[in-house]
Amino acid sequence: MKIFGDSISGNCLKVKWTADLLGQPHDWVETSVLSGETRTPDFLAMNPAGQVPLVLLDDGRPLAQSNAIILHLARGSELIPEDPYLQARMLEWMFWEQYSHEPYVAVARFQVRYLGRAPESLDADLVRRARGALDRLDTALEGRDWLIGDRFTLADMALAPYTRFAPEAGLDLGAWARLPGWIARVETRLGLPALGVA
Amino acid sequence: MKIFGDSISGNCLKVKWTADLLGQPHDWVETSVLSGETRTPDFLAMNPAGQVPLVLLDDGRPLAQSNAIILHLARGSELIPEDPYLQARMLEWMFWEQYSHEPYVAVARFQVRYLGRAPESLDADLVRRARGALDRLDTALEGRDWLIGDRFTLADMALAPYTRFAPEAGLDLGAWARLPGWIARVETRLGLPALGVA
Repeated sequence: MKIFGDSISGNCLKVKWTADLLGQPHDWVETSVLSGETRTPDFLAMNPAGQVPLVLLDDGRPLAQSNAIILHLARGSELIPEDPYLQARMLEWMFWEQYSHEPYVAVARFQVRYLGRAPESLDADLVRRARGALDRLDTALEGRDWLIGDRFTLADMALAPYTRFAPEAGLDLGAWARLPGWIARVETRLGLPALGVA
Repeated sequence: MKIFGDSISGNCLKVKWTADLLGQPHDWVETSVLSGETRTPDFLAMNPAGQVPLVLLDDGRPLAQSNAIILHLARGSELIPEDPYLQARMLEWMFWEQYSHEPYVAVARFQVRYLGRAPESLDADLVRRARGALDRLDTALEGRDWLIGDRFTLADMALAPYTRFAPEAGLDLGAWARLPGWIARVETRLGLPALGVA
C-alpha cells in the first residue's frame, strides 16, 4: 500500500497511525498541499478531489477521504466495535469530526501555524466554533476513557490528531478538564511522543 | 423508530427516504431548526450537538449524523455494496458529501431560499465551491447511472437531496451534462415527484 500524505495534516496522520497500529506495511509518499502537489495532473488522475490523504491499495486501486480509508483499513479489527449500535455511534463521531470539528479546529491551527496569523487575529466565529467543538468532545469524555465503549476505536483515531494540534491554534487544552488526559491516553495507545498538552 | 427532522433539510430527507425505501416504520417528528427547536434542553439531552436529523431507535437509544443514521438503517441491505472496496468508495463519497458538497451547495440554497438572499449576492467563493462540487459529481457520473457499481447505493442517497435542491440556490442543473438525468433516476428509484430539473 502507498499512502500519499502531508505530514502536517491531521487527516493524513490518522491514516498513517491506523496503518502503523494494525501493522500494515506501507510506503509513505510525502505530498505537500502547500506546494500544490495534490493539484498535478498525475495526482488528480488518482484523486479528482485533489486532496490527501490518498491511498493506493496493494492492487493499485485508489481510496480517498481519511475516515473512509481508516474504516477500510481497520475492517474486522478491534478498532471497530462489533456491536451495530456502538459502530453507528462511532460513525456518528467520525461524520461529526469532518463537519463540526475539523473545519474549525484544523483551520484555526492552519492559519496560525502555517499562515503566520496571530491567534487573536483569527475570525471570532471560527474560534467560537472551534471552542464549541472542543467543549462537546470534553463533555462526551466525562467519566470515560474513550469516546465509544471501553476501548480505543476509530472515533478516537479520527478526533485525536487535530485536537492534539489545537494548542498550535492558541487553544490551550489545559482549559478543558478531560481533553489533556484523553490525548495522553491516545499518545500511549499509539506510541506517540507526548506533546505535553496536559 | 422516531425521526426528528426538519422537512426543509436535505440531511433529514436522506433519513426519511432511506426508512421509506427500506419499509421501516417510523414516526416523523417535525423539528424546526429556524425556530430553535433543536436547541431546547429536551432536545440537547437527546443530541448534545443540537442538530437534526436525530433518530430514537425502537429501544429508545439516540443516533445522530445523517450519514451515520442511514448507514445504520441500511446495514445488510442492497443499499450498501457487499464488496469491501465498493463499500469503501461509497463511504468516500459520503464523507466527501459532508465536507465538500453540503457546506457549499446546501448553504448557498439556505441563504437564497430561507434567508431571502439574491443568488447574485452570494459570497463568490461559496458559489465557486458549490459549482466545483457539482462539477466533480457530474464528472464522476460520466458513463454511469449511479455513483458506485451498477445500482443505487447510499452514495446516491447522500448526494441527491441537496443536489436536487441546487436550483433553489440559483444553480441551474441544466448547466451540467449528467446531473439532471441522475436526479431523475434517483426520483424514480425513490418514488419522488419530479422536480423537473432536467
